[in-house]
Amino acid sequence: MTEAPPPFAPGADEETVETGIAFSPRFDAGGLIVAVAADADSGEILMVAHMNREALARTIATGNAWFWSRSRRTLWRKGEDSGNTLAVAEMRVDCDQDAILIKVRVAGAGVACHRGYRSCFYRSVPVGAAPMPDLALAFDEDMPRVSGR
Amino acid sequence: MTEAPPPFAPGADEETVETGIAFSPRFDAGGLIVAVAADADSGEILMVAHMNREALARTIATGNAWFWSRSRRTLWRKGEDSGNTLAVAEMRVDCDQDAILIKVRVAGAGVACHRGYRSCFYRSVPVGAAPMPDLALAFDEDMPRVSGR
Repeated sequence: MTEAPPPFAPGADEETVETGIAFSPRFDAGGLIVAVAADADSGEILMVAHMNREALARTIATGNAWFWSRSRRTLWRKGEDSGNTLAVAEMRVDCDQDAILIKVRVAGAGVACHRGYRSCFYRSVPVGAAPMPDLALAFDEDMPRVSGR
Repeated sequence: MTEAPPPFAPGADEETVETGIAFSPRFDAGGLIVAVAADADSGEILMVAHMNREALARTIATGNAWFWSRSRRTLWRKGEDSGNTLAVAEMRVDCDQDAILIKVRVAGAGVACHRGYRSCFYRSVPVGAAPMPDLALAFDEDMPRVSGR
């Protein structure tokens, strides 16, 4: 019985990681890497989540976004319940290979957030004055939304 | 002598955090929150970094992006050395308030990555087949670049 090869290249020195063509994603101490999903057509940032080694491998193999849920401690195929799956049109990795960007097309109702909004970033934070505990977020009233939890 | 109030609202239950207007950013066990910087005009994702409480407060107060460097264990105002500072046109927070999005305009040479590229995501990862250790990244030859390290 032979062991399956590890799916990614091993880590290397900074110069090699940042300027080479080997894919050696850097998982953090908890075994996770940050993944940002953006709309492949509009560029809008839809959500930020985490992948472990298995979620990243499945996303690459299947072209559908898989993540690791830190709260539920389980792998999840995004949209498995809601139907709002994410088809990956393109994947990128950043300079030091500790962040993944996926450009996606959202299936189903076309919303990425479990709250029913097109993007999880449906509230803005006022900038330009020292933050205070009573600083108020503003909802993006123009963001498309379906009924959500 | 009175103590300065904490700059953000305290945490709350999930419903309140996700549907309310109180800004109660959730820092991880290491005291950090993920921050994604996108170009305010084109929407292009430029970089992913981390903020601690102080970096987030300074970014909000000054309108310039501050981060926490995990490798150097220090606060840094992005672009302090390179001149490629990030002016924050808009800040957003995601549903469960554990990720920040800043829409920025890059000063100086207009590049966000220390490698001289406009964006840190200058390499793509092939998708659609099971990953293997020899999977090869592809450089985005069209991405604007100045001389970088």
